[in-house]
Amino acid sequence: EKLVQLSAALAEKGNYRHFMEKEIHEQPEVIARTLTHYVDPFRLVVRPFESIDFKQYDRILIVACGTAGYAGQVAGYWIEQIAGMPVRNEVASEFRYRDPAVSKRDLALFISQSGETADTLAAMRFCKDRGLTTAVVVNAAHSTMAREADIALPTLAGPEIGVASTKAFTCQLAALAMIAINAGRARGHIDANREKELVTGLLEAPRDVSKALEMEDEAKRIAGELTQSRSVLYLGRGVYYPLAQEGALKLKEISYLHAEAYAAGELKHGPIALIEENLPVVVVAPHDHLWDKTMSTMQEVAARGARVILVTDSAGLAACDVKREDVILLPDCAPIASPIVAAVAIQLLAYHAAVYKGTDVDQPRNLAKSVTVE
Amino acid sequence: EKLVQLSAALAEKGNYRHFMEKEIHEQPEVIARTLTHYVDPFRLVVRPFESIDFKQYDRILIVACGTAGYAGQVAGYWIEQIAGMPVRNEVASEFRYRDPAVSKRDLALFISQSGETADTLAAMRFCKDRGLTTAVVVNAAHSTMAREADIALPTLAGPEIGVASTKAFTCQLAALAMIAINAGRARGHIDANREKELVTGLLEAPRDVSKALEMEDEAKRIAGELTQSRSVLYLGRGVYYPLAQEGALKLKEISYLHAEAYAAGELKHGPIALIEENLPVVVVAPHDHLWDKTMSTMQEVAARGARVILVTDSAGLAACDVKREDVILLPDCAPIASPIVAAVAIQLLAYHAAVYKGTDVDQPRNLAKSVTVE
Repeated sequence: EKLVQLSAALAEKGNYRHFMEKEIHEQPEVIARTLTHYVDPFRLVVRPFESIDFKQYDRILIVACGTAGYAGQVAGYWIEQIAGMPVRNEVASEFRYRDPAVSKRDLALFISQSGETADTLAAMRFCKDRGLTTAVVVNAAHSTMAREADIALPTLAGPEIGVASTKAFTCQLAALAMIAINAGRARGHIDANREKELVTGLLEAPRDVSKALEMEDEAKRIAGELTQSRSVLYLGRGVYYPLAQEGALKLKEISYLHAEAYAAGELKHGPIALIEENLPVVVVAPHDHLWDKTMSTMQEVAARGARVILVTDSAGLAACDVKREDVILLPDCAPIASPIVAAVAIQLLAYHAAVYKGTDVDQPRNLAKSVTVE
Repeated sequence: EKLVQLSAALAEKGNYRHFMEKEIHEQPEVIARTLTHYVDPFRLVVRPFESIDFKQYDRILIVACGTAGYAGQVAGYWIEQIAGMPVRNEVASEFRYRDPAVSKRDLALFISQSGETADTLAAMRFCKDRGLTTAVVVNAAHSTMAREADIALPTLAGPEIGVASTKAFTCQLAALAMIAINAGRARGHIDANREKELVTGLLEAPRDVSKALEMEDEAKRIAGELTQSRSVLYLGRGVYYPLAQEGALKLKEISYLHAEAYAAGELKHGPIALIEENLPVVVVAPHDHLWDKTMSTMQEVAARGARVILVTDSAGLAACDVKREDVILLPDCAPIASPIVAAVAIQLLAYHAAVYKGTDVDQPRNLAKSVTVE
């Protein structure tokens, strides 16, 4: 039966060389599908979750592993800003064993593509045992986590075959943005105008992602240069910090380059010692209120001879007066959609770096698709 | 005046080759001094903080940069376990700009050796402006943060000259452990017996650290081998995860090797793809309730050809049946003292790696001692 499923999946690779490539390109469609699930398309508001009363909770715990954890970190920024609710993000393998201080006034939110991730499932059961309400953002509708959680919040990414997650990640971001808006409205932290603005911005994300995919040739060229180096740094601030982490993880997973991400402001507290002539530094920085800070970090890095690869939008490009080696230009979009759009750039960089290196893109060494063992 | 200070400091290097080496060896003394400040030496209990009523708070925010941030992460584990209070750890450069959800029921705890770290100071002022109680764990008694915080909690490490922090870090851990015990007692989460057990264990830390310093020759030999590789991974679980992070940071800062740390349980969610023949993997794992999990991670790593360098105690050594290249044997000690003791191992590894590479140990490239700019 496994063979039949695999053959069916293989048949679906179509004109793409790898499943990962196909899945990157499917994103406009599956993000749209995921967003639609959460929105009233006529009134442009989020559909309320009847099963969650956000006013009942003092805090949201977000627990996940790997890529899903980075989606959760972006959500942490969104929920604190849009809903004014304290969030604690945590890696599932740490959370489940450390005797965490939790209470029934915590909403426990888990994120898993497969719904079978062993550590995340164990963390969910831990919270259930302690009487917490559990919600899961999950792609596999018939999975254990979808079944056992009090509330299942779907991503509609469809089956993901490539081991390195792409479309599942951006669909997680789409669903999590909707959850943040829902919480913000339920708690009266945003008004109807702001809600409409956020929802409208998000609904543009599929189109923005399509535009972002047009920079593939540019990403491919830069990826070729990345592979000349053994180490790569990724930097970002705010919501782009988890994006930088996801970028570094993606590059590690499939190209085996030693990529590492830092919050841009932490660089000077140690890791800047690593910077040397020609070290590639990918700076994920669409133009926002943190732009000047990120620029000053770029300046320090460039002054020490690093090859700066800037992932930004047109406003960032216009404002940038640091010497950079390369630019990946993102389409202009609403701030709420921007992490989703930036994800495309880091996916394409990693994918093409792996293709250059000739690794087994869809089945990288040492990795399994869903980690169902501890 | 600056020159006079520097000369005075230089004169104090004594028989050590570098300030960092001297400061590593000062740790038994300065940790003892710091602990003594917080303890009633006759009753073996912590002195209550008259200025903090831990029952008034629902949560502790811990905000810091770099090494101080890793001390804060260890404290996060301790406070949740010993005091049952939810903690949120955060990097200061992120916290100050992201419009965090805070309330007057949060105690805001900052950590800074110099008391002048720009991002941490700004984060503290942000919290003060919002009416939060602010506390700072600080080494420089006359610093801005010591002056401006509602409560200053001293570390008594003395002046630290080496740019890479060592004794300030372990003294921060000592002070933070005392804060966790204080909170646990104030909230009734631990009883008098448990308090005495914890305090007694901590008071042994200076002697344990002295014993740990005896493994210097072994650390030196292993450090020489580390420098043969361009990348190094550090792994840990629970309180040893921040220790692994501090170990990787230290190695980066002064030896310029690309060291990166992972929570051991996250390895299989991507970074394990990096593992290849002869990659050094430093596993920080004294024997505890997570031992079996860490062993299974070591097994996976060793099976893929990595050179495992195990930092453990005698119980860990006895229980380990994974092929490891090298062992740094820590003295047996109380669990609460163990992160402090393990810190010595990672400091010695980094120090001797830097000496082998011939870098400017006390003044590594690109770095300043206290980061008083953003």
